Amino acid sequence: MSEGTREQVLEVAARGRAAAADLAPLPRGVKDAALHAIADALTERAAEILKANEVDVERAREGGTEAYMLDRLSLSRERLEAIADAVRNVAGLPDPVGENVRGYTLPNGLELRQLRVPLGVVGIIYEGRPNVTVDAAALTLKSGNAVLLRGSSSAYDSNVALVNVMRDALAGTGVPVDAVQLVPGRDRESVKHLMRARGLVDVLIPRGGASLINSVVEESTVPVIETGVGNCAVYVDAQADLDVALKILINAKTQRPSVCNAAETFLVHRDIADAFVPLALAALADKGVTVHGDERVAAYSADVVPATEEDWRVEYLSLDIAAAVVDSLEDAVKHIRAYGSGHTEAIVTTSQQAAKRFVALVDSAAVAVNASTRFTDGEEFGFGAEIGISTQKLHARGPMGLPELTSTKYVFTGEGHLRG
Amino acid sequence: MSEGTREQVLEVAARGRAAAADLAPLPRGVKDAALHAIADALTERAAEILKANEVDVERAREGGTEAYMLDRLSLSRERLEAIADAVRNVAGLPDPVGENVRGYTLPNGLELRQLRVPLGVVGIIYEGRPNVTVDAAALTLKSGNAVLLRGSSSAYDSNVALVNVMRDALAGTGVPVDAVQLVPGRDRESVKHLMRARGLVDVLIPRGGASLINSVVEESTVPVIETGVGNCAVYVDAQADLDVALKILINAKTQRPSVCNAAETFLVHRDIADAFVPLALAALADKGVTVHGDERVAAYSADVVPATEEDWRVEYLSLDIAAAVVDSLEDAVKHIRAYGSGHTEAIVTTSQQAAKRFVALVDSAAVAVNASTRFTDGEEFGFGAEIGISTQKLHARGPMGLPELTSTKYVFTGEGHLRG
Repeated sequence: MSEGTREQVLEVAARGRAAAADLAPLPRGVKDAALHAIADALTERAAEILKANEVDVERAREGGTEAYMLDRLSLSRERLEAIADAVRNVAGLPDPVGENVRGYTLPNGLELRQLRVPLGVVGIIYEGRPNVTVDAAALTLKSGNAVLLRGSSSAYDSNVALVNVMRDALAGTGVPVDAVQLVPGRDRESVKHLMRARGLVDVLIPRGGASLINSVVEESTVPVIETGVGNCAVYVDAQADLDVALKILINAKTQRPSVCNAAETFLVHRDIADAFVPLALAALADKGVTVHGDERVAAYSADVVPATEEDWRVEYLSLDIAAAVVDSLEDAVKHIRAYGSGHTEAIVTTSQQAAKRFVALVDSAAVAVNASTRFTDGEEFGFGAEIGISTQKLHARGPMGLPELTSTKYVFTGEGHLRG
Repeated sequence: MSEGTREQVLEVAARGRAAAADLAPLPRGVKDAALHAIADALTERAAEILKANEVDVERAREGGTEAYMLDRLSLSRERLEAIADAVRNVAGLPDPVGENVRGYTLPNGLELRQLRVPLGVVGIIYEGRPNVTVDAAALTLKSGNAVLLRGSSSAYDSNVALVNVMRDALAGTGVPVDAVQLVPGRDRESVKHLMRARGLVDVLIPRGGASLINSVVEESTVPVIETGVGNCAVYVDAQADLDVALKILINAKTQRPSVCNAAETFLVHRDIADAFVPLALAALADKGVTVHGDERVAAYSADVVPATEEDWRVEYLSLDIAAAVVDSLEDAVKHIRAYGSGHTEAIVTTSQQAAKRFVALVDSAAVAVNASTRFTDGEEFGFGAEIGISTQKLHARGPMGLPELTSTKYVFTGEGHLRG
């Protein structure tokens, strides 16, 4: 199945739709048992998964893929065990389905409830690591949704093996096998068909780089949840503890530069610039970070690379950072509004008033006060798991856990109530 | 401003964006005072609004518009007073902005809160009555959003007058005047530009017929909330009180046939068909309703019009109803899943088990148990006001009140917290 014709993709989507109808009313116990069956099967059938993965890794190596990418693609027995444990962890999380979000009796005696229900069919389009295949399947299954998985072609053989193992594990559990499906085809066309499957697919969640996400947002008629692009800023206010500011900046930039909640820009209030910028430049240089600064930052060191307009916008995901001196907290906010991606911005300040103002004015999914941007994460927030970080305002914003994979349904019960 | 070039529409959207930034942090008192200023201005300047409305009505009359449509278009002093009162009512509702949706301290000591914040810039594309212009502006303003209003060209002069009066009323209140704007142009092109203004507009809410909504859903790159198409069904279960079933069916169909929560289909379990269908046909005929039935319904009366495939799908909005006899509750659900619009379905039953099963299996925004479908409504649900009824699963489902016009923002506060 290397093609993915429109008919094939729509057929898979229709099977997902039917599975979703059967999945929705299933009690938690059935879903959790199915998740444990999947976890067990992943270790039991490790050999065949690793064999398929070796095909992907070999193909990537021959194609000249860089070492760190090969590492991301590679599975091992240990990694598979960790993936299986993550599935068991999802089984242990509370079931969001059926939660009573609202409930009261109306003046006319009608009993009104708003219940959490699955979204239905969730399409996930993702790049890179094969562990996402299992993570996404576990989270969507737990939340009562059928999933259509469309991973990157580089991990195609691994994904086929993982999905086969998961589907086999579902047989006999009470969860329909078609709750977990791979979208046929490894070409771009199959993604297009998925994006036009409105009515069969309830939501698409693209996970990956900016170009993948933008193309899905542009072309999809299925509702999309944008995730993950993070051009995050750290703003050091006029009143800030220099040591705290320095530690937060270094942590946000260097603790794991390749992820969306890493800092890509720092902004410094002019009143503290003389004290802070030289310290920051030295510490960043020490960590091997290249600073792309405006003129006022460049004045402090010849090592600063002059920043272009592009530097303010870009998500480096590398040991690079853009930097500017600003005249006020408001100017920092203006910069963030103009260039940020609405993911996470941090303020370092000892002023309660400045913190409050920054929180009120910054229009991002998360705002950190005296903390590293790196904490914007479902696990860190205590959600137990994460399907992605939404940078849009509709439906879900910020880290998305299980409740964010649900919708709601109103139920009202009367005794022959009529509208007058 | 009868054209609406791309530049003009984007300029208006950009002004809305700037206004939204100023609006977001405003306290409730400022917004409520602005709403009262709008309400007062609507009565004080009634003469000029009515004069503009007369232009629309005259143009429509000359164009041969039907009497009931002319009535919907027409304003009067009394109607304006009612519109102003509705604005005062919105001022009295709780402010959703700033509400603490979630809040706890993480194990590492970070204080995490999830706060309700405005969406930003909301575009409303609507047909018909000019009162929507004011309702939509009041609800978006109260929830801290800037609104871009795009009404029907038939109400263009009325809308221009209403928006002018509202904008004048905002001057000096602290709410930016550009919080309320009319999208320039009365042609289809201006709607297209609005639908492509991603990044400037946060959400589009089309309110109107199926063709308007479908075209927005198909073409928009701005996220859309689908509203209002209602192909609602009443299912009479094998065990049902015939009198209750009859009253609910008649109320759901005839109490106000032109609205989205009116019933368009009824389904009857075969075990109760002999008892119920003749009663239903007689009562519906009595109210002037044409029944489009399947063969099993048609067997009860020569007046039944044979139903076509189209009859199962259509939202009549008139004194017509489709009808079928089904073999089971599951078949009723199958029919609804195949043909319904996901708005509201009702079951009439004395069986607790059947009610529970219907609620679990039906995948619609609202499910009514022994009550008329007509209750799916923001006012009836106690929300105080309604911007529309969402029939999609993302973000909001069912009647949307003020909280549904907001997003959220995570704020986490530490003391120099770093990720390890």
